[in-house]
Formats: sequence, C-alpha cells, structure tokens
Amino acid sequence: MLRTSLCVLAAVVAYGSLVPSSAQPATGPAWLSPHRDNVSRLQAAAQADDFAWQRLAELTDTYGARISGSENLERAIRWAQATMTKDGLANVRAEKVMVPRWVRGQESAVIVDPPEHPMAMLGLGGSVATPPGGIEADVLVVKDFKDLDARAAQAKGRIVLFNVPYTTYGETVPYRSGGATAAARHGAVASLVRAVGPMGHRTPHTGGMNYGDATVRIPTAAISVEDANRLQRLSDRGVRVRVRLAMEAHFEADVESANVFGEIVGREFPKEVVLVGCHFDSWDIGAGASDDAVGCIATWEALRLMKALGIQPRRTVRLGLFTNEENGLRGGTAYRDAYMASAADHVLALESDSGVFAPASLGFTGSDAARRYINDIGMLLMPLGFPPVGPGGGGADIGPIAQAGRVPMMAYNGDATRYFTIHHTPADTVDRIAPQDVAKAAAAIATMTYVVADMPDRLPK
Amino acid sequence: MLRTSLCVLAAVVAYGSLVPSSAQPATGPAWLSPHRDNVSRLQAAAQADDFAWQRLAELTDTYGARISGSENLERAIRWAQATMTKDGLANVRAEKVMVPRWVRGQESAVIVDPPEHPMAMLGLGGSVATPPGGIEADVLVVKDFKDLDARAAQAKGRIVLFNVPYTTYGETVPYRSGGATAAARHGAVASLVRAVGPMGHRTPHTGGMNYGDATVRIPTAAISVEDANRLQRLSDRGVRVRVRLAMEAHFEADVESANVFGEIVGREFPKEVVLVGCHFDSWDIGAGASDDAVGCIATWEALRLMKALGIQPRRTVRLGLFTNEENGLRGGTAYRDAYMASAADHVLALESDSGVFAPASLGFTGSDAARRYINDIGMLLMPLGFPPVGPGGGGADIGPIAQAGRVPMMAYNGDATRYFTIHHTPADTVDRIAPQDVAKAAAAIATMTYVVADMPDRLPK
Repeated sequence: MLRTSLCVLAAVVAYGSLVPSSAQPATGPAWLSPHRDNVSRLQAAAQADDFAWQRLAELTDTYGARISGSENLERAIRWAQATMTKDGLANVRAEKVMVPRWVRGQESAVIVDPPEHPMAMLGLGGSVATPPGGIEADVLVVKDFKDLDARAAQAKGRIVLFNVPYTTYGETVPYRSGGATAAARHGAVASLVRAVGPMGHRTPHTGGMNYGDATVRIPTAAISVEDANRLQRLSDRGVRVRVRLAMEAHFEADVESANVFGEIVGREFPKEVVLVGCHFDSWDIGAGASDDAVGCIATWEALRLMKALGIQPRRTVRLGLFTNEENGLRGGTAYRDAYMASAADHVLALESDSGVFAPASLGFTGSDAARRYINDIGMLLMPLGFPPVGPGGGGADIGPIAQAGRVPMMAYNGDATRYFTIHHTPADTVDRIAPQDVAKAAAAIATMTYVVADMPDRLPK
Repeated sequence: MLRTSLCVLAAVVAYGSLVPSSAQPATGPAWLSPHRDNVSRLQAAAQADDFAWQRLAELTDTYGARISGSENLERAIRWAQATMTKDGLANVRAEKVMVPRWVRGQESAVIVDPPEHPMAMLGLGGSVATPPGGIEADVLVVKDFKDLDARAAQAKGRIVLFNVPYTTYGETVPYRSGGATAAARHGAVASLVRAVGPMGHRTPHTGGMNYGDATVRIPTAAISVEDANRLQRLSDRGVRVRVRLAMEAHFEADVESANVFGEIVGREFPKEVVLVGCHFDSWDIGAGASDDAVGCIATWEALRLMKALGIQPRRTVRLGLFTNEENGLRGGTAYRDAYMASAADHVLALESDSGVFAPASLGFTGSDAARRYINDIGMLLMPLGFPPVGPGGGGADIGPIAQAGRVPMMAYNGDATRYFTIHHTPADTVDRIAPQDVAKAAAAIATMTYVVADMPDRLPK
C-alpha cells in the first residue's frame, strides 16, 4: 500500500491534484479534450449512488453460488439477459456453451487419531471421489515438491499434505493444481493442500486442480491454514497422525450454459469492438461476490451508464459475461471459436476478475504504441485516486480471443491480499465489498472503455 | 486501544518507565519491597521462552474441542492431571463432577427458495432437534425483542431470525440465550440468531441457550453475520424466503467428568487459599484455544513457575481447571459445594476466561480496602505494559465459591473485540494467539497471585 500511495503522490505532483473532477483543472494531453465532458459525466454518474452495489447484492443474494452446471447459474444467466434488456443495451443475447458439471457431494476430512478432530476442508474442483467410507491413512506433511521428492519413500500408502505457506497466488497455486498428481507419482493414496490464501477464520479455499494425463487419480482437498499448521505441529512432535478423507466428488454429463452479451453499438465503426467482461460462474460455496460477480457488475455498469447518459462512442462496446471460467474456461474458448473471424476487429479487451478492494489499479499488456494512449487515458483516473496504469493486463476469459486477434488487454485489479483471503471460500460475499469500491471500479472501467471506443484513431496493435 | 495506551502512558509518567524490570527503579510503595525479587524472577521466567504457548498448542492440537461429556475432554483431563504431577505441583487431584452431554449431531440451515443456498450455521448448545427431515417455513426477520412483539401476528408458523447487530456481548447475547423462547411464545416453529460477535469469515458462533421453564421448546441455531444480512436484504426487498432447518441436537445421559486441581502449599498459612483458574471444557467446534485453554495454561503457569523457581508463598495457591463452564457450570458449582466449609478461607479468586489478546488488563471486584492492595500490586505489572487494574473482577467458575465466602475476585481480560470475533467458532485455534501474549498473561497472573499469597497480612475482605 505504501508503494501505491507513493505512486499516486508522484503522479499527483506531476499531473494535477486530487480534487473532484468537476472542479479540477484538465489533466493529461490535449487529445483527450473532446472526451473530457463525457468522462466527467460517466464518473459522476457512477459515483452518484450505490446502484452498482445494490445490483451486486441482488445478484448474489438471489442466486448465490453459481457453479457451472448448476440451476443457480442458469437462473442468474436468465436474470442477466432480462436485466440487460431492461437497461436498454443492444444485441442482448445468450450464446450457448456446453459446460462440465462437477458435483462436490458430501465430504469430510477428520483426524481420527489423536482424539477425533474434524478439519475445515473443501474438495478441489475436478477431484475424484474416495471409495465409499473414505480413505484412512497416516499423513505425511511436506513443505514443497522438493521435500516430497526427498521423502518419496515415505509417501507410499499415505495421505500427503502440501503445507506450503502462502506467498503469492502464482507461487502457491501449483500445489493446488498439481499436488495430487505429484503425490500419486510416489504412491500416495490422497493429497491435501494448505488453503491457497492468507489465513482467514478456519476458511479453506477450493479451486481447480487437474490430473493432466496421469493414469492414477487420487482424491484431493484443501484444508484450512489452521488445520495444516496443526498437522505440521503434530508431525514435528513425532506424533503419528491418522486422517480419514471422504469425498463423493464426481463429474456428471455436460450441461448447457451460456455466455451473455450486451452492446453499445458504435456510431462510426460498429465492427470495431472494445470487449469488457468477467466470468459469471463461481465455485459452489460462498456467493462468488468478489470472484467474480463484482467484475460483471462493474463492467456492465460501463455500458449501462453510457446508455443512461446517451453516450454512444465511435466503436462498439461489448459486454461479455462468460460462463465456466472456474473449471473449464469453456465460455472464453467458445467466444474465441464463435468470433474467430472478427478477432482482429477487437480493439481492446478488458477483464475484471480480481475484485475491487481498495487500493485498486489497472494493468495493461500490449505494444508501446498502444501503451502511450492507455497511459494518457489513465490520467483521467487520477481524480478517482488511481495510480498510473501498470503492467499485467489480461484475464482468463479474454485470453483466447486476444491471442487469436493479437488484442491489447487490460485488467482491473483490486487489492490482492484482501481478494485472496476470501476468494474461493464461503466468505466471498457482498458484505465485505464497499459500495464506493464498486462505484470506483465502474467509473474507471467506463472511462477507459469509453475513450478507447471513442478516440478518432483506432488504438494501435 | 487509544484509551488504554493513554492510561498506560499516564501511569508510566506517574510511577516509572517501561524499561525491563531487571533494570528499572522500584515502582510502587515500600510494602512491596520484600516481594520484588521473586516478582522479577517470575516475570523473567515467564517471558524467557515460549513454553506456555507450546503447552497450549500441545493441549489444543492433541485434544481439540472439549465439550462436556466428550472423550476429548476426559482424555485432556487425564493429561492435565499427569502433567501437573510432572510439574511437581502438590495435591494434584481430579474431583468427580457429573456433567450434561449435549450432542449436536448433523445439522443444516438452507435457503430453499430463492435458489438453494446453504447457510453457515451452528445449532445453539441446549437446543432441541427438529423433526427428522427438518422444519421448512417462511422466515420473519426481526430487529430485536420489541420488533418481534410489534410483529407478533406474523411470527406464527414461521422461523424467526433475530438480526441484531453486535455491540457488546452483554447486550446481544440475550438473543442467543432467550430468542427461542421469545419466538415460541408467538407461535414460531424455530428461531435463528445472527451470530453474537463481530463479522468473521462466514463464521457462526455457537453458545449456550436455555428454555427456562417454557413448555414449548423450538429448535434454535446461530447463522453467520453474512447470512443474516442476506436474509435481511431479501426481506427488505419484499422477497418471501423459505428456509429448511434440520437439527439432530439432543441431550444424552449425564457423564462423569472432573475438576482438576494442583497446589503450591502455603509455608505459613496453608489453609488460606488464593484460587486461580479457568474452564477446561470448550464448545464442540474449534479447539477452544482462547476459550479457554489459554486461561488454563496462563493460570497453571503461575504455579509451575513458582515451583520451578522454588518460590513458596505464605499462603496456598490453588489452581482449578473447572469442567462444564460452557453449558452447565457444574464444575464451579461442585467446587462451591465441596469446599463450602472453607469458602471463607479463600483470600482471592482469579479467573482467566477472556483470552489473552493484546491489549490485556486485569479487573478487580472487592472492597476498597482490598483494592488499595491490588492497585499497589498492579504497579508491578507496569514494566509488562499493563494499565492500572480496572473494575470488573470475576468469572463464571469462581463465582459460586466467591459468593459463598464473600471472596474478592479478579479477571484477566484480553482484548474483547479480538476475543469475541472468534470465541465459540471453529476459528478459535492457537494459530492466532501470540506466544508473547501467553507469556505476559502468565507473568501478570503469577505476579498478582504470588504477592497476594505472600503478603504478611491477609488481603482484606
């Protein structure tokens, strides 16, 4: 946070002050001038009330967890389509996507000896089941993949726990996705992973895993940080710990789902598209409020506000609520396949899938030529308190089309520590999201989207 | 925290500085002088290592949740008795107490319409079960008892939710203990209470409830703050919400348990007793680390350190690990009954049952004459950073004997917000307790206990 604050301060010194946009002197270069008025209107409207937060609460309260293949998700998709239509967006449509249906079923992980202790656990998405009645075995606690390799002889017939302290998502998530296969290679009968995230309140984190082409597939689950610590301490004391893991997890037949789209059609270059989006599915626990309902609401707001204010940029702005990001990416892949012919017409793709917790920022990945424009537009976000646009644009759902069309990408990034503390947990609810953070996200995304869609020259590749 | 810091500061200015006790000038009046050396030794020994934290971790890791009537509790009691003996305490004994055995069984609370959403819930201790298959009914959300009375006509046949925001434990716990009976009076079929505590991570808080002499007994459970908020928002939007509550909770026959005692026998007045204690049972979820394993370890340390340092005060110091505080108080009551004849020989009773989270403090309840001594001894805690001793001594387990013998009482109080955020939840584990906070508690309790037990004149009534 300190580093960000310093960035903001440095930028403020360079470009202007943090007074409200209505009263402040113009920031940034002259080419932005024709867009300033609409940007001010969009930013003011986004922050005028808590409309976006209320819509987020309505979505998450009414439909809750929205895992691919669930009735909750399909009902939510119908609601989104109907609500976009009511908002007056153009070309509102749901485009069919077949998605996997992974069902958790009943599950538990219990220390049976020393005296019984049920652990806080969540099976990992994609895991197979245990045999009925579960698997009971001694636990081998390892610190990382290397430690497992060093103690390979002890893994046979055991339940391996990867007790890897959280540093960043990127560094620790490989133990969630690949731990089971690594443990199986050494003869383990099941694998557990310390929840990938900072310690919460005994909150395990679920998330995707995959077996790759491994032939031996063992069941796998996350346990809370506290339970992992406990197994570590018991192990360090030389106590033999027996755990019973029982899981009913399995795949059922693929189910029909859909990506939902709505547009503001460009007044001059309607075939050139600025794509903004999110994923509409979530895991089956919690309400998926930060991951990623809020990303859907914030990007949706960009279009709703343009429509409400009668703002029609030169190019088309397309909103995509993608299905099945969490455990298949079928939505993003289907979009690429369906829109391959127009991939190169995508001017910019922006995804919001990291929450909106303050302090937030925008990231960009693209050519230097494009970055110069994006950096300029970023100056318009300074009245909202944003730091300059950083690196690291992108998103899982926009990735396939962006790759196909060499499309510059952006990401809206909330504070990572707060996000990863609750993401993929039952605590991912609307209660911890501040209305002003949703409003700011909407204002920032609307600003960036509108200017890129409205600038006379197309954003360079 | 600010207020406490200012108190400490003011006290430091008045009495001395915060340099280590070994190097600092004497604080407090002259009568303390003969005790200073041993106080310094006790405080230094308590803080020399993380022995107390390690013992706490061993207890909670090995035995976990210790609800009355459980095998975990009885195993932990045997461990405590054996370990006290190893410590060299005198008169180590377990005194039989019959305790209730309330069994939670399977339980769930699900919003069935709008789309299904399982709530984070915990049945309240003492609740009856639902019929098999559960109770399904519309929810009536009320803000408090008055609101329920005003909407009494709507309660019939419904599940009433008391959605009362947490202020203090004292103010909000009546909805947990008495909500079911109030709701039943108006014809409700079940009652839910918003978890009594600050919002955690979707963490419900269990805790005791009682039906008094009510003839109609309806099942009752706590739901997480987030789930209560959600029901409130749905209700505010005019949505009819149906919930299915299923609970198997029931009492089984009373079970034999025990209070465990150990002593440092007084060298001059062995019949005069300074009683320090805690409760050794917990709820059936979490590990009861802050509530109240840490209180047991911290008070136990006072005696262990005296023994280890060869310190034998004039009066007897007695440690009591009481059973069944959480749902019956049979331990504290049995102690009073067994020791009624010597109730008046209790010089002081101190209980630690509010955790040890910083900033901590000591509270005292007794005569002004006694308070003058306690305030003086409190000055010896200033090098540890404690504020002056405040009001509010006491504790559930020491209450009965104190009332019988008109015994002055003290309490060790950890920070209430941190304590009530996790108490009675699965997140009450050793992981969030700092070793230095346990050491400080042990140092403070050892200081107070030793001086009161060793001062030439008996502490006035």
